[in-house]
Amino acid sequence: MTPEEFRRAGHELVDWIADFRATLDTRPVMARTAPGEVARAFPTTPPETAQPVEEIFATLDATIVPGLTHFGHPRFFGFFPSSSNLSSVLGDFMSTGLGALGLTWQSAPALTELEEVTTDWVRQMVGLSEAWRGVIQDTASTATLVALVCARERASNFALTGAGLQGGGAPLVVYVSAQSHSSVLKAALVAGFGRTHVREIGIDASYAMRPDALDQAMREDRARGWRPCAVVATCGSTTCTAFDPIDAIATICGDQGVWLHVDAAMAGSAMVAEECRPLWAGVERADSIVLNPHKWLGAIFDCSLYLVRDPEHLVRVMSTNPAYLQSTAASAVTTYRDWGIALGRRFRALKLWTLIHLEGVEAIRARIRRDIDHARWLAEIVRATPGWRVVAPVPLQTVCVRHEPPGLEGEALDAHTRAWCDRVNASGIAYLTAAVLDGRWMVRVAMGAPTTERRHIEETWRAMQDAVA
Amino acid sequence: MTPEEFRRAGHELVDWIADFRATLDTRPVMARTAPGEVARAFPTTPPETAQPVEEIFATLDATIVPGLTHFGHPRFFGFFPSSSNLSSVLGDFMSTGLGALGLTWQSAPALTELEEVTTDWVRQMVGLSEAWRGVIQDTASTATLVALVCARERASNFALTGAGLQGGGAPLVVYVSAQSHSSVLKAALVAGFGRTHVREIGIDASYAMRPDALDQAMREDRARGWRPCAVVATCGSTTCTAFDPIDAIATICGDQGVWLHVDAAMAGSAMVAEECRPLWAGVERADSIVLNPHKWLGAIFDCSLYLVRDPEHLVRVMSTNPAYLQSTAASAVTTYRDWGIALGRRFRALKLWTLIHLEGVEAIRARIRRDIDHARWLAEIVRATPGWRVVAPVPLQTVCVRHEPPGLEGEALDAHTRAWCDRVNASGIAYLTAAVLDGRWMVRVAMGAPTTERRHIEETWRAMQDAVA
Repeated sequence: MTPEEFRRAGHELVDWIADFRATLDTRPVMARTAPGEVARAFPTTPPETAQPVEEIFATLDATIVPGLTHFGHPRFFGFFPSSSNLSSVLGDFMSTGLGALGLTWQSAPALTELEEVTTDWVRQMVGLSEAWRGVIQDTASTATLVALVCARERASNFALTGAGLQGGGAPLVVYVSAQSHSSVLKAALVAGFGRTHVREIGIDASYAMRPDALDQAMREDRARGWRPCAVVATCGSTTCTAFDPIDAIATICGDQGVWLHVDAAMAGSAMVAEECRPLWAGVERADSIVLNPHKWLGAIFDCSLYLVRDPEHLVRVMSTNPAYLQSTAASAVTTYRDWGIALGRRFRALKLWTLIHLEGVEAIRARIRRDIDHARWLAEIVRATPGWRVVAPVPLQTVCVRHEPPGLEGEALDAHTRAWCDRVNASGIAYLTAAVLDGRWMVRVAMGAPTTERRHIEETWRAMQDAVA
Repeated sequence: MTPEEFRRAGHELVDWIADFRATLDTRPVMARTAPGEVARAFPTTPPETAQPVEEIFATLDATIVPGLTHFGHPRFFGFFPSSSNLSSVLGDFMSTGLGALGLTWQSAPALTELEEVTTDWVRQMVGLSEAWRGVIQDTASTATLVALVCARERASNFALTGAGLQGGGAPLVVYVSAQSHSSVLKAALVAGFGRTHVREIGIDASYAMRPDALDQAMREDRARGWRPCAVVATCGSTTCTAFDPIDAIATICGDQGVWLHVDAAMAGSAMVAEECRPLWAGVERADSIVLNPHKWLGAIFDCSLYLVRDPEHLVRVMSTNPAYLQSTAASAVTTYRDWGIALGRRFRALKLWTLIHLEGVEAIRARIRRDIDHARWLAEIVRATPGWRVVAPVPLQTVCVRHEPPGLEGEALDAHTRAWCDRVNASGIAYLTAAVLDGRWMVRVAMGAPTTERRHIEETWRAMQDAVA
C-alpha cells in the first residue's frame, strides 16, 4: 500500500470511525453473532493476490461491527470501563503510523522519554509521592506477574541466578484474598509458586482482606517452615469494588520483609479525585502498584501502568544485555525492556499523552466524579424499589444488584439472576455482567463509558425491570 | 474529544502520516537527540485544562520524529525488519478506533474468530500442516515464556496445581544454545527454572546447535538426577541467522519426552517462500513455534504468532475461569485469554487481515525473495572488496560483515568495528547494528524495510566504506 493509497483509505477510515462513535448509542450493545458466524464470513485460505480496499470497509460494516460488544457504548455497564476516549485514540494512531519500536533507548529515545514524562504525570494525578517510577505494560496480568517475580527474587536473594525455585529451600508463599483478580493466581502459577503456596486470606463483611487473618496465616506458614514472600492487596476488586486495608497489611508485610503489591488496576484512576484517596491509605508503603489508565482514566487499551519504588531491583531481575542490544547511551538513560517481560515495546506513551493533553486533568477528574455520582444515584433508586437489593457497598462506580422475588432462593434465585441479566444483554439495550458474591449470583452495573449520561442509566434501569417482569 | 473534533484531527493525522511515509527516505535514519532532550520538551506536570490539538502536531514534528530511529526507512538495516506496512497500519487503526476488547468470546466474537482465521492463513502461508492452531501474542518474549511454562507443566504433571517448582523434585532443565535469543534465558528465569538449570549447548561452524552435544548434556543431566524439560531451537538467530537442526533435535526430544519449542520469530516469515522451508525441516515435530508477523511479514508491531499442536494442554496450564468471565457460549468457542498471560486482548487480527488482504500472498512472497536477493547481492560485493569480510553464512536477509584492515586484531579490531558502525549510524544515511560473533564484534546488515531498493543498499555500502576510510 503506497502512502497515497493509505491517504485515501485512511481518510475514509477516520470518517467511518467518527460516524461509528457518533452513532454508537443507536446500535445494540452486545454482539449478536452466533459462534462461528464471523469466521464463516472470511475465506478459509489467504488471497494469493491483492484484494480491493472497499471489501475491507464492507466487511467492517457487515461482519466486524455486529460481531463486537461495544465497550464505548453509553449503555455499556459490563466488566469494567474501557472507554477508549477519542483523544487517546489519536495518540495510538500516531504510534501505529510512526511504526516506532522500543528495543534500546537509541531505537526510539522519544518512546522512552515520553513514557517517563507521562507515567510521572499519572503519578502526580493520583497523588503518589516522587518515590515512584512508572512503566507502561500491556495489562495488569503482566504487571502482577512482574511484581511476583520481583518479590520471589527479593525473598530468595536472586535465586534466578542459581537454582531458581528448584533449589529445595523453604517454599515461598503468596497471599491473596477471595476477592483478588483471577490474574493474580495465574501470575503466581506462571511464576512457579504452585497453588499450594498461594494462600487465600479471609475477608470481612465489606469483602476486604482481614489483616488479623493474614498475620495468622503468615505465622502458621513460618511455623511449618514456609517463607511469606508477597501479599497482593486489591484496591477496588473486580466483583464488587472491595478495598483491602493497605495500611494495616503494609504493617504486617514490613514487619516480616514481605513484598506488598497493590492491584489498583480499576480503582487507581479514581485517585485523580482527592476525596477517593483515603480508599488506598497506606499505598506509599507498598513495593509496587498496578493502575490501568486503559480502564477508567480514558486511555485506549492497552495501557497498564506499573509503578515501583525500587527500579534497580526490577532491572536486576529483568535485565538481559546481549551485544546486539547494547547502546552507547545506556548508562545515562532508562532501558525499559528491563522493566518488564517483552523486549519489543510499542510507543504507548503517545496515547496517554494525547489523552491528558487534550482533555486536561480537571475534565478527567470531573468524569470520574460524574461516574461515581451515577453509581450512587442508581444505588439509591434500586434500594428504594421493592424486590430489588444492592448487595455490596458502592464506594466507586459499580453497583452490585439482585432482584429477589419473594420465595425465590438458592439455585432458583441464581437461575433467575442469570436469566434476567442475559435478557438485558440480549435486548441490545444495555450490557451488564453477572458475577458471584457470597456464593450467590448477582449483577454488576459498572459505570465509566465516556458518553454515559443519566438518561442512559435510566434506560438501563427500565430494561432491568422489564427483564424481571 | 467529540467525534467531529476527532474527524478533523484524524484527517490531519492521516495526511501527516502519508507525508511522513512518503518522505521518510529524506530523513536521517537514526534518532539524533541527546539523553533527556525529548523529556525536557514536555511540561513536568500534567495540564489541568484541555490544551490545543495543534500543539500535538507541532510536538510531533519538533520533538517526536527527530527522537525516533525509523525502522520503516528504506536504509534501515538494524536489529531486524519491523516494517509496519501501511496495509497493516490501516487494520491497526480499525482496532484502535473500534475500541474492542477481548476478555471472553462474547465480549468480541469477531476479535476471536478473525484471529482464528488469520492465524490459520499464516499457518498455510508458511506451509505448516493442519495440526497447528495459532494465537496472536505481543512479542516472542511472551510466547517463549508461555512455551516454557507449558513445558514445565507437562514435565511435572501439572505441578502448578500443587507445590509448583517448590516441591523438591528433580530439577527441570531447559536447553538453549549460545545463539539463542536473550528472551529465551529471560523466559526460563521468569518461569523459575534458575540459571543453573538452563544449559547452553555447543554450536558448530555454522553456529547451529550440535545435536550430539545436546544428547550428551541430557545424558549427563539425567545421570545426576535432573530432568530434561525443554529445548528451544532457533530458526534464524538474531546475531547471524543461524538455523538449529530441528529434525535431529526433535528426534532427541521425542526419545526423551522433552518439549521442543522453535523460535522462528524472525525467519518464520521466510517460509512463505517454499525454497526456504528446508531450513526448518522437522518443524512439524515440535510442540510449539513462535513466528513474528511484525518482523519480516510486514505486520505493524505488535503481532507475534504462537503456534501449538496441543491447545488443550495450553488451556489447561493457562486457564482461569472466575464467575465474572464466564460465558454461555464458552463450550462452543475459543477462549483466547486462556492461550497466554494477558487477560485483556487487543483486536490484533485486524492488522494481519488487512496486510494479507490488501497485499496478497504473492506480493509478500515476492518481497521476501527481494530481500534475500538483496542480501546475497551485498554479500557478493563485500566478499569481492579487499579488507572486507562476510563473517557468517547468509541464508536469508542478514549479512554479517567486518572490515579488517591489515594488522588490526583483537580489541583494536573491535574498537574499529564499533567505531565505523557508530559513524554510519551518526551520519543519518543508514542504520546498522553491531553484534558479537565468535567473541569479536561485527556488523549486521539486516534487509526487510518495505521500500528498500537496490540503490538504498548501494548508498549504505558507500557509507560503510566512507566510515572506514
